[in-house]
Amino acid sequence: MTSKLIAIVAGVGPGTGASVARKFAATYPVVLLARNPENFESLAKEINSSGGKAVGISTDISDPSSVKNAVESIKKEFGSDVGAAAAIFNASGGFLRKPFLEVPEEVFSKSLDVSAKGGFLFSQASLPFLLKGVEQKSQYPPTLIFTGATASVKANALMSSFATGKWALRALSQSLAREFGPQGVHVSHAIIDGVIDIPRTKERLKDQGPEAKLSADGIANDYWWLHTQPVTNFTWEIDLRPAVEKW
Amino acid sequence: MTSKLIAIVAGVGPGTGASVARKFAATYPVVLLARNPENFESLAKEINSSGGKAVGISTDISDPSSVKNAVESIKKEFGSDVGAAAAIFNASGGFLRKPFLEVPEEVFSKSLDVSAKGGFLFSQASLPFLLKGVEQKSQYPPTLIFTGATASVKANALMSSFATGKWALRALSQSLAREFGPQGVHVSHAIIDGVIDIPRTKERLKDQGPEAKLSADGIANDYWWLHTQPVTNFTWEIDLRPAVEKW
Amino acid sequence: MTSKLIAIVAGVGPGTGASVARKFAATYPVVLLARNPENFESLAKEINSSGGKAVGISTDISDPSSVKNAVESIKKEFGSDVGAAAAIFNASGGFLRKPFLEVPEEVFSKSLDVSAKGGFLFSQASLPFLLKGVEQKSQYPPTLIFTGATASVKANALMSSFATGKWALRALSQSLAREFGPQGVHVSHAIIDGVIDIPRTKERLKDQGPEAKLSADGIANDYWWLHTQPVTNFTWEIDLRPAVEKW
Amino acid sequence: MTSKLIAIVAGVGPGTGASVARKFAATYPVVLLARNPENFESLAKEINSSGGKAVGISTDISDPSSVKNAVESIKKEFGSDVGAAAAIFNASGGFLRKPFLEVPEEVFSKSLDVSAKGGFLFSQASLPFLLKGVEQKSQYPPTLIFTGATASVKANALMSSFATGKWALRALSQSLAREFGPQGVHVSHAIIDGVIDIPRTKERLKDQGPEAKLSADGIANDYWWLHTQPVTNFTWEIDLRPAVEKW
Repeated sequence: MTSKLIAIVAGVGPGTGASVARKFAATYPVVLLARNPENFESLAKEINSSGGKAVGISTDISDPSSVKNAVESIKKEFGSDVGAAAAIFNASGGFLRKPFLEVPEEVFSKSLDVSAKGGFLFSQASLPFLLKGVEQKSQYPPTLIFTGATASVKANALMSSFATGKWALRALSQSLAREFGPQGVHVSHAIIDGVIDIPRTKERLKDQGPEAKLSADGIANDYWWLHTQPVTNFTWEIDLRPAVEKW
Repeated sequence: MTSKLIAIVAGVGPGTGASVARKFAATYPVVLLARNPENFESLAKEINSSGGKAVGISTDISDPSSVKNAVESIKKEFGSDVGAAAAIFNASGGFLRKPFLEVPEEVFSKSLDVSAKGGFLFSQASLPFLLKGVEQKSQYPPTLIFTGATASVKANALMSSFATGKWALRALSQSLAREFGPQGVHVSHAIIDGVIDIPRTKERLKDQGPEAKLSADGIANDYWWLHTQPVTNFTWEIDLRPAVEKW
Repeated sequence: MTSKLIAIVAGVGPGTGASVARKFAATYPVVLLARNPENFESLAKEINSSGGKAVGISTDISDPSSVKNAVESIKKEFGSDVGAAAAIFNASGGFLRKPFLEVPEEVFSKSLDVSAKGGFLFSQASLPFLLKGVEQKSQYPPTLIFTGATASVKANALMSSFATGKWALRALSQSLAREFGPQGVHVSHAIIDGVIDIPRTKERLKDQGPEAKLSADGIANDYWWLHTQPVTNFTWEIDLRPAVEKW
Repeated sequence: MTSKLIAIVAGVGPGTGASVARKFAATYPVVLLARNPENFESLAKEINSSGGKAVGISTDISDPSSVKNAVESIKKEFGSDVGAAAAIFNASGGFLRKPFLEVPEEVFSKSLDVSAKGGFLFSQASLPFLLKGVEQKSQYPPTLIFTGATASVKANALMSSFATGKWALRALSQSLAREFGPQGVHVSHAIIDGVIDIPRTKERLKDQGPEAKLSADGIANDYWWLHTQPVTNFTWEIDLRPAVEKW
């Protein structure tokens, strides 16, 4: 790997984040951000031991000083002039299916803190790296991708908390796409409309067969595809769902 | 005025909030919530001196304990069993047209605090009153209305902060409409797509004539219309703009 | 009734069309268009015998020459300079819930012919009357309203035929709203998201009680409300559904 | 090339259609449909002389009998059991930027005939081939892609004719995606939101540099990417625009 440009992935866990990190690690040194080091340690080891480079940084994405520290750590590790080819925001929080009057304020705020404020802080932290990636003539246009969900476009009953944060994040991504596209940064939003096939969802949709859940590696491929789109053909938004999904 | 049901208006100022309060005060005692008492004092006096009843309560809509105090004040004033016929959320914050990398975290958080968390706290505070309004056989279905903006459906460049809060609020309103419609509460969202004709906007669009701005009293009439829709014909969302507006 | 301005309703039958015609007939002489005279004869009689004025014209809304004849008949009846205060397009066709490969080309074309081409011909026929209504200082801004459906915004499986025509009609209404708003004509689109309570739907949703279906008179009231909005506060789109509807 | 499965492209001309045909011809024998043989003759020659296989069939996509003839020709050429791996609908018509009252009925109908009825006929013709592709275990899920435009999601003033057909086509694609996804056919819709860089648009946006227009080959790559998505990760809709495009 000879790229001087890095990829930054926020919200690394045993699902989409890990698949995305592995995919981009084949080309770029990757920075793995997660609150709990357990979520990136084995993944970083795996990438580092298989010829790639990964650096994990324990980060609370909704805390301005924690995100600032992560930026400093990245500069210390890769040099203060390092540019980024990709930044992927995969964090989420505040998921709760509950009657509205029973939703604790803490859960509602958690959704906003992670999805909306976290998306904001991650974007303010990563865009300067991405703009440097433009200056440094990244092979593919530097790309900022946000992971959305069904709840990003449909706010169902009992889902007020999660949906609110996810709509906010989608708004952020659209505004950024409009502002930074002309500056050469590709901003995208992916609506993941279904259950992702990860350890945590093992028991779900079992009776519907192995194709009823989204492949996390497939999502990573789709993110890579977005990353490789040329400056003449940017996609802001894709939806992704299993063929058998009802929608 | 013989109604025992009240109307609650959050975000009262010299614009839409005041027009809405006056309109609903013709039928219901109104509770006026604003952070700064200056924003409701003269309006309350005006309503009270012209045969209506208005009670102003200084409230920070994004602060759980302040909202809780407002609820207590309402119960003290109108009785602990009082029901509401209408609750209107008209607060907003975090408006800033600025390149994303120059948006202070405080402004971004302000938008989320007022529009998203404020909308949440107001809804959790007012829905129990509205559900009592259903029990008490309100003449018109008790109604919860949220004031949106162009930025509720379009996140333009340089508008990330305001749009993020407004999309979040729209999501909240949609989820609540789905949950509380079947319980008899009518939840609506109004997309105000243009400049409202209020003292603060006096200088704007002057060359386009008096019809280039939305009438605040007109918006109040539209909210009243939403309020009077029967349980068989609920509208979740309306857009409102001057005839001459480009969109 | 002293109005010199007329209202034109296309797609009159024993449901929304009749309710809308009755509502607007309280203020304006109404022209009733339907292919089959049976659909307007008793309604016209009812309106004429109760102090209003109604003229029925047998019209195939998807046939250019038939629509042209209707325009001539209107001018003959009301004078060649007559203006219109309202025009409501309520026709639809091509409803079929069927696997796509079993949809006959005739049914698919029927949907396009009535909803899309019919909407086009009706608009081209009625807009000159509405623009005259603007010149003649109609009390309320002359209004062109299109009746949409759930299928106007969601194209479900097995519903390709109906949805295709309805999306086309919605597009037409949006383009016209943008073009004719600045000329003083108010163009609106109503998404009727549920079953309307009319003779034909008597057996549907019976177990869910009388409030599970939309009131046709309620829809007429909503159309009237749209009609009375001032030029500063135009709504392009409303959705309408029973409170208990799942959406 | 060993694939027994074919790709069918409707609306071949010197732009997107040709790029898509070339791209898919690298893997599949391609059938080129266009009304005017001039639009596919040199392309077919080019593909055939460079190791691929292309068959051009003169077809009026809005004429049922012409489309039926095309189906017969395909079966005669490739065998009556031939399956398809991909079918791409790239035809459009009825583009006219004009005040609504000056739009000839013929132009409006042309848009509906090509985009809506043409999309219908092409889908009914190609889906049986695509379903056979599923049975014959196509390497990638058989894919039906529709080319949309800005006017597929926004009906601007003066654009009623083109927008109406394009919204109808989008509705069709959504309904088909929901019906045929569970049967293993991947149905997608691409919103081409900008000017495509083809001979006909040579003079447009010249002052904005070479990156202000969409690359037709880039669109073809994106269609290929959609085609290669696995059955667990289907995208219904993508938008595509130059980085510098205002939207």
